[in-house]
Amino acid sequence: MRSCSAHRLKGVRQRAMCGIFGIVGNAEASNLTYLGLHALQHRGQESAGIVSSDGSVLRAHRQMGLVADIFDAPVLAGLPGQAAIGHVRYSTAGGSALKNAQPIFVQYAGGQCAIAHNGNLVNAAELKEQLEADGAIFQSDADTEVIMHLLARSKQATFEQKLVEALRRVKGAYSLLVLTENKLVAVRDPMGIRPLVLGRLKEGAYVLASETTALDLIEAEVVRELEPGEMLVIENGVMRTSRPFEEPKRLAQCIFEHVYFARPDSSLFGKNVYEVRKRMGMQLAREQPADADLVIAVPDSGVAAAIGFSQQSGIPYDVGLIRSHYVGRTFIEPQQSIRHFGVKLKLSAVRQVLKGKRVVVVDDSIVRGTTSRKIVKMIKAAGAVEVHLRISSPPTKWPCYYGIDTPSRQELIAATHTTDEIAKYVTADSLGYISLEGLGEAVGDPKREKFCSACFSGQYLMGELTAPEADVKLTA
Amino acid sequence: MRSCSAHRLKGVRQRAMCGIFGIVGNAEASNLTYLGLHALQHRGQESAGIVSSDGSVLRAHRQMGLVADIFDAPVLAGLPGQAAIGHVRYSTAGGSALKNAQPIFVQYAGGQCAIAHNGNLVNAAELKEQLEADGAIFQSDADTEVIMHLLARSKQATFEQKLVEALRRVKGAYSLLVLTENKLVAVRDPMGIRPLVLGRLKEGAYVLASETTALDLIEAEVVRELEPGEMLVIENGVMRTSRPFEEPKRLAQCIFEHVYFARPDSSLFGKNVYEVRKRMGMQLAREQPADADLVIAVPDSGVAAAIGFSQQSGIPYDVGLIRSHYVGRTFIEPQQSIRHFGVKLKLSAVRQVLKGKRVVVVDDSIVRGTTSRKIVKMIKAAGAVEVHLRISSPPTKWPCYYGIDTPSRQELIAATHTTDEIAKYVTADSLGYISLEGLGEAVGDPKREKFCSACFSGQYLMGELTAPEADVKLTA
Amino acid sequence: MRSCSAHRLKGVRQRAMCGIFGIVGNAEASNLTYLGLHALQHRGQESAGIVSSDGSVLRAHRQMGLVADIFDAPVLAGLPGQAAIGHVRYSTAGGSALKNAQPIFVQYAGGQCAIAHNGNLVNAAELKEQLEADGAIFQSDADTEVIMHLLARSKQATFEQKLVEALRRVKGAYSLLVLTENKLVAVRDPMGIRPLVLGRLKEGAYVLASETTALDLIEAEVVRELEPGEMLVIENGVMRTSRPFEEPKRLAQCIFEHVYFARPDSSLFGKNVYEVRKRMGMQLAREQPADADLVIAVPDSGVAAAIGFSQQSGIPYDVGLIRSHYVGRTFIEPQQSIRHFGVKLKLSAVRQVLKGKRVVVVDDSIVRGTTSRKIVKMIKAAGAVEVHLRISSPPTKWPCYYGIDTPSRQELIAATHTTDEIAKYVTADSLGYISLEGLGEAVGDPKREKFCSACFSGQYLMGELTAPEADVKLTA
Amino acid sequence: MRSCSAHRLKGVRQRAMCGIFGIVGNAEASNLTYLGLHALQHRGQESAGIVSSDGSVLRAHRQMGLVADIFDAPVLAGLPGQAAIGHVRYSTAGGSALKNAQPIFVQYAGGQCAIAHNGNLVNAAELKEQLEADGAIFQSDADTEVIMHLLARSKQATFEQKLVEALRRVKGAYSLLVLTENKLVAVRDPMGIRPLVLGRLKEGAYVLASETTALDLIEAEVVRELEPGEMLVIENGVMRTSRPFEEPKRLAQCIFEHVYFARPDSSLFGKNVYEVRKRMGMQLAREQPADADLVIAVPDSGVAAAIGFSQQSGIPYDVGLIRSHYVGRTFIEPQQSIRHFGVKLKLSAVRQVLKGKRVVVVDDSIVRGTTSRKIVKMIKAAGAVEVHLRISSPPTKWPCYYGIDTPSRQELIAATHTTDEIAKYVTADSLGYISLEGLGEAVGDPKREKFCSACFSGQYLMGELTAPEADVKLTA
Repeated sequence: MRSCSAHRLKGVRQRAMCGIFGIVGNAEASNLTYLGLHALQHRGQESAGIVSSDGSVLRAHRQMGLVADIFDAPVLAGLPGQAAIGHVRYSTAGGSALKNAQPIFVQYAGGQCAIAHNGNLVNAAELKEQLEADGAIFQSDADTEVIMHLLARSKQATFEQKLVEALRRVKGAYSLLVLTENKLVAVRDPMGIRPLVLGRLKEGAYVLASETTALDLIEAEVVRELEPGEMLVIENGVMRTSRPFEEPKRLAQCIFEHVYFARPDSSLFGKNVYEVRKRMGMQLAREQPADADLVIAVPDSGVAAAIGFSQQSGIPYDVGLIRSHYVGRTFIEPQQSIRHFGVKLKLSAVRQVLKGKRVVVVDDSIVRGTTSRKIVKMIKAAGAVEVHLRISSPPTKWPCYYGIDTPSRQELIAATHTTDEIAKYVTADSLGYISLEGLGEAVGDPKREKFCSACFSGQYLMGELTAPEADVKLTA
Repeated sequence: MRSCSAHRLKGVRQRAMCGIFGIVGNAEASNLTYLGLHALQHRGQESAGIVSSDGSVLRAHRQMGLVADIFDAPVLAGLPGQAAIGHVRYSTAGGSALKNAQPIFVQYAGGQCAIAHNGNLVNAAELKEQLEADGAIFQSDADTEVIMHLLARSKQATFEQKLVEALRRVKGAYSLLVLTENKLVAVRDPMGIRPLVLGRLKEGAYVLASETTALDLIEAEVVRELEPGEMLVIENGVMRTSRPFEEPKRLAQCIFEHVYFARPDSSLFGKNVYEVRKRMGMQLAREQPADADLVIAVPDSGVAAAIGFSQQSGIPYDVGLIRSHYVGRTFIEPQQSIRHFGVKLKLSAVRQVLKGKRVVVVDDSIVRGTTSRKIVKMIKAAGAVEVHLRISSPPTKWPCYYGIDTPSRQELIAATHTTDEIAKYVTADSLGYISLEGLGEAVGDPKREKFCSACFSGQYLMGELTAPEADVKLTA
Repeated sequence: MRSCSAHRLKGVRQRAMCGIFGIVGNAEASNLTYLGLHALQHRGQESAGIVSSDGSVLRAHRQMGLVADIFDAPVLAGLPGQAAIGHVRYSTAGGSALKNAQPIFVQYAGGQCAIAHNGNLVNAAELKEQLEADGAIFQSDADTEVIMHLLARSKQATFEQKLVEALRRVKGAYSLLVLTENKLVAVRDPMGIRPLVLGRLKEGAYVLASETTALDLIEAEVVRELEPGEMLVIENGVMRTSRPFEEPKRLAQCIFEHVYFARPDSSLFGKNVYEVRKRMGMQLAREQPADADLVIAVPDSGVAAAIGFSQQSGIPYDVGLIRSHYVGRTFIEPQQSIRHFGVKLKLSAVRQVLKGKRVVVVDDSIVRGTTSRKIVKMIKAAGAVEVHLRISSPPTKWPCYYGIDTPSRQELIAATHTTDEIAKYVTADSLGYISLEGLGEAVGDPKREKFCSACFSGQYLMGELTAPEADVKLTA
Repeated sequence: MRSCSAHRLKGVRQRAMCGIFGIVGNAEASNLTYLGLHALQHRGQESAGIVSSDGSVLRAHRQMGLVADIFDAPVLAGLPGQAAIGHVRYSTAGGSALKNAQPIFVQYAGGQCAIAHNGNLVNAAELKEQLEADGAIFQSDADTEVIMHLLARSKQATFEQKLVEALRRVKGAYSLLVLTENKLVAVRDPMGIRPLVLGRLKEGAYVLASETTALDLIEAEVVRELEPGEMLVIENGVMRTSRPFEEPKRLAQCIFEHVYFARPDSSLFGKNVYEVRKRMGMQLAREQPADADLVIAVPDSGVAAAIGFSQQSGIPYDVGLIRSHYVGRTFIEPQQSIRHFGVKLKLSAVRQVLKGKRVVVVDDSIVRGTTSRKIVKMIKAAGAVEVHLRISSPPTKWPCYYGIDTPSRQELIAATHTTDEIAKYVTADSLGYISLEGLGEAVGDPKREKFCSACFSGQYLMGELTAPEADVKLTA
């Protein structure tokens, strides 16, 4: 699930994976938001934006590109005030556009308001249709705009009540930061699908971020994660908390954050990501052992699981693949007649480590299978005599509707092929996935009642599975 | 009125002067729109945008900057289809922003819709307040967004009926181009404040533009100007016309288009701009003669009137001021300690033409007086013994609410000073303005019932003059 | 001669038309050089550069593009010191390159040295061959590098002596500014082919520039033009002059500077350019009268001559062609299928001025004839009944070897066609050129002993006419 | 030795670390050079350049920035031909400039010639002085220009003879690629200081590169390393080899290539870099054992040694520090009042891995000590109870004159402090370096007669140690 992009669900472009950051109570709010977004850059490289409030006026800057390229001293100087929110958005294959950059920033009857959103709404299309029938105009493809319209149309008395009314009508995943002239509101959806963590600077400012790594960078203390369904309002230096939504039957924290998406130094859903991944690797070694000379990782996302696999199995860990530091989005491959370089620009094999060896290769997931095939071939070309591919998540058979961008079922190799068929396709001597039960153990949810693993199980929480998707012929 | 920018009227940022262009029925619609916008660049240098329709999908590109810098072959290739509309927006001193770039492009219950607007609405603030109270959210400061909201909320049956209902609620100036998936609509407000002309390509496409110069460039034949209050709908190659608005008591074509704004080779409101300006110069020579050796212009806007003055007075016309071709918006003046270069970077005096001469200098208008003062001083420094400043419009005493960007009354030197005081300030040996009557004659409206000249007379058409403006102590 | 570019003479790329500026004795030397180059931008739009000296170290910044785009506050802050020289280089069709940007800046045995050069050397190829045979390496195609090599290899004792020795070996056109750590040297070639003028700031700094307009902009007093063959050395605030070269038989000031190249507000070779051009127009009216209703110019270079023609003939002057302010180098024409827009993007006709009229059109020169043909057709398309083209220079039949970039003889229409044939080609009802004698009168050189007019007469000064050029079949 | 930059040795700016690539015999020569340079990007991020030859004309493109940003399809299309050489240059703190970008490209008596150079000449200053005395002009600070001047001045008959004569006069480090219209020459200095490897494409082209990783990327077979003092000439598809230089007393292959500079997947000086580094880690574990719970690396350069340390010591390897993928050269830190973020933007600690642990941290070297201090503090702040810093190279006490950019002796902490003092400064509980003998073992040169380790030992090969450097008070 390396290549993620926005997709469409019944006519509404879904938000792809994103990162959000907010701060209130510090004179350098936009500077610190810039740093926080930089730490969350892995959650979205397509566009970034910051909206600040100086207490009476909101100011915005949004642009396509990387945080470090978008913001400089003059741009940040144009975003004054003690409060700010920011957003990074995932890079998409082609449908990306500036109009979808966040935070969304509007004026409505209540004044000015900006929203930064991580997650996907599953009933955005229906709500959009209703809103349009009632005269609303939409200027982006983002489902976040739906929330803003619902908020603006609410007849409730206070801003919080309006926001709650709006959010009660949406279904799906949302970790939200909402900024007005004089307050910052943070909300996490009732099932807790996307993460959101609260921190505090020594000087007193409150900070909110998708992952703890952003708090660490600015040396903010981690206070706690927002609870699923919790709403925090910070105003005049005072923080109020409430639980305004109906209790759901179960939680649905995204297990894929632990598998691939989050940074290993972050803690999410109560666990450190690196430790969880290492446990996945240990579990994988127990479930899918291999007779081999060494364990290597597909860097960087497979490293923790590979070390876990090595420690559990006793097979030495080594570095068999090197990742280039210089593969960015601007790399233009030369003309057609040269063979396609693809993954070779990103990864290179260490021949002397691999030559003559039976190698366990640990990766986090297989999506289409094409990249895995190239990697296995690269390792064999470097002299490995056997390649045993081990995957630290179960077969990915179902698309995600809550914010991880996955291709359609047809393109997911595990939706239409058996593990043996996949092993053959990727040219591995053996292929083993961790079991869903094993993954549950690794994330500390053995009964699987706190995490959503629909991408592996197809057990969606809100009945999103639609006919065309179900049509796919299942072979597994 | 050289430096124009957006300003605020009761909380709504007004659209500054702009240019619009549209075409339907040609496979190179966006390419031709690009050329048309290039020809209209003088009407707005802040931002530009094009929206095209391929019959089912609209695509947009809007950016800050000049037309030639924004659009290139790949960008235009991303705007396919047989129909397109485009917009250029005037450069503002600081409040400019990408969010205000046009055409506005939205999705609403009826599908996709884009609007390009030239002109200002005078009741935008009231309408915006009503719309917000009804739950609307605004993503720009542009009053054009008000029209789009009204359109989307209309309960009328057809698109045209919705648009008409929306426009019946707005007051002020609008020449509009509206693009949907399958039609292009052009409307001119009932008082005809802003221009809009219809043309036709030999190959059959219909073209609409703010000025005829855009039609000339792409070798489109000029068919006719839209009438005030006329609405054209072009769909499936068929053009329908209607007059859906109540007849106003009078017309209010903007006289300042002829004085300064439009290109001299364009024809507007039934007259060629160059010829009108020349007649202004002749009238000025009759009303405000001068005993002088030569007549020069402040280039380029004063050239036609200066030639007219010369022909009427018999005083030879000559070139005493040269305009640089290389003054763009990017020129950064060096550090503080160097004296301010201002107008000197743009204009330079021809010493040998001016030395020892009594010079009539013709300019189109005086706004604050600071530029005129620098020009007169430059001419004297070049050796002129007398400078007689002649202005081809009456004293500018009142701000414009219909789309020409003028400073507040306090900053208009003629609002607070007599002509003698102004002459003294600008260091001219004499100063003469054309009379309002004379200007009326020059534009072919001697009874002044077709043109708006509120910037000179203060006689606004819709009672916009508000207390703070009226407060200014009048000395003239 | 609108489209000029570097060409090759016997294997050495010639310097195209350029502008140079230098200043010594002011703490804002590089800022003022930036302004001076901006005023000289018409002499070269391809690249620009500044080298400054702080008394011990020289610093350089050279880049492709326009002065206003290349230099900003941080770049200028990186060019400290009380002395600076700058250079603008003409835009070329394709062979342009950063390596040819000036000033050239090198280190040699005597320390650091920078040279800015306007003009072409005609024996550069021979000298380059000799230098290479002696082990020199060349890093640009510019003949200026030849001067630098000769200087570095001189065995003379002082810097000035080295420079004089170097310049005694070169033949051709050079106005030079040479900057070392502690001095600024200005030289004009013995025949005075290119201009160079000395000015002085009130505060005491000496300033040198290709044209007086650069001095005017920074409010420097014009002291005098350098004499042909004069060398000025400014060091420690003291200026020394000398005449170190052999007296030539005649002067050869470039007549084309007055015809087209220089700005009208500049004074060159003792005369104001605008006045000279007006006299050309008057002479042209006497030599080539026309029975017509009005006189128009091809703007901007034809304006002065057109006014002169009008005053002499009594036929009224009017503006029949408008020049766009927004045609820059970045304009990309849309795809092939659209007809070529060429000159239409730059010029547009004023239909109401031209309709039904017999028009005299005054332009400065005809090179290939293609542009003139388009202009005549545009004027006729706008309704003119007769077009009488009048050219304020004689037929351009010969290439220039001294710095004006002209195409080869084969491409010069007047080299191979009679005036009648040219008139027919450009579709003019009549065509008349000023005579060489008349041009001599207009520039104040009736005996033609001070100006070079080889581009009209073929009478080169140093025998450059080579066989291939002479081969062209002459029909005139 | 993370932060490397050009420095000056007796007035000549030395070439910093660089990478070179060349190919001859393939129609996509410049495209493949682009890919090769991309693979060598770690050797230089300041500027990059390619010169191609189409058999008769050389063409160049050099620019500041990263390979992927500089070259795109149109730029590469402008570099046609079957042969090309390329160069990447190291980023410097401030003194960087376009004029120093390589390959150098000149014209001399023999035609056109381009040179790409990796390494530093130690007698460049003397040679430059002699050349200048003889009339040479220098346009860059690069010592490579010295080679070009010597070549151009040689009176030898053939190109190879000229090049050999030139190289016989220089002392120091050079791996060179020289391109003329019809041949590619590759040379490695007699002591073999810098690497250079020969490869071959299946289709037949010869390829040369600083490291094997560049050959791997384009799927070229590694033929062999050039021998020290070897010169290869490839012309008309034929390769000739010779050993034209006097045999030196010993070899001096740069040991720091193995310690830090090269990519781990490359093989250099006969050994795979990753394996060598792992052996360093094992040796370090033997020499400097630690009583600890886990071993972590400072990524990425310390990873191999850390794994080696872990395998030797039996202490588990884990990931305690995460390296950001998004730290590029454009990151602008926010304003002063925010505490300096420095290394935190690049590295973050995994709290759960480190908490309560006694940690061995393996890094490749300590230069100034400031970065090590920050890293140790970061690890302790994450909860480690003990930090034992282990360095896989001996104390860096001496500057490098052969191409690794190091600060002056005064800034090298090990030049002026004992290991105990350094441990205290960096706040480590213990600090251990590998011994020089141990390092020799690890690189397979136990007698230290093939590698230069002057940066550790001060035993320079050509007596470069100059008085000011020797002045530093030695405490170790």
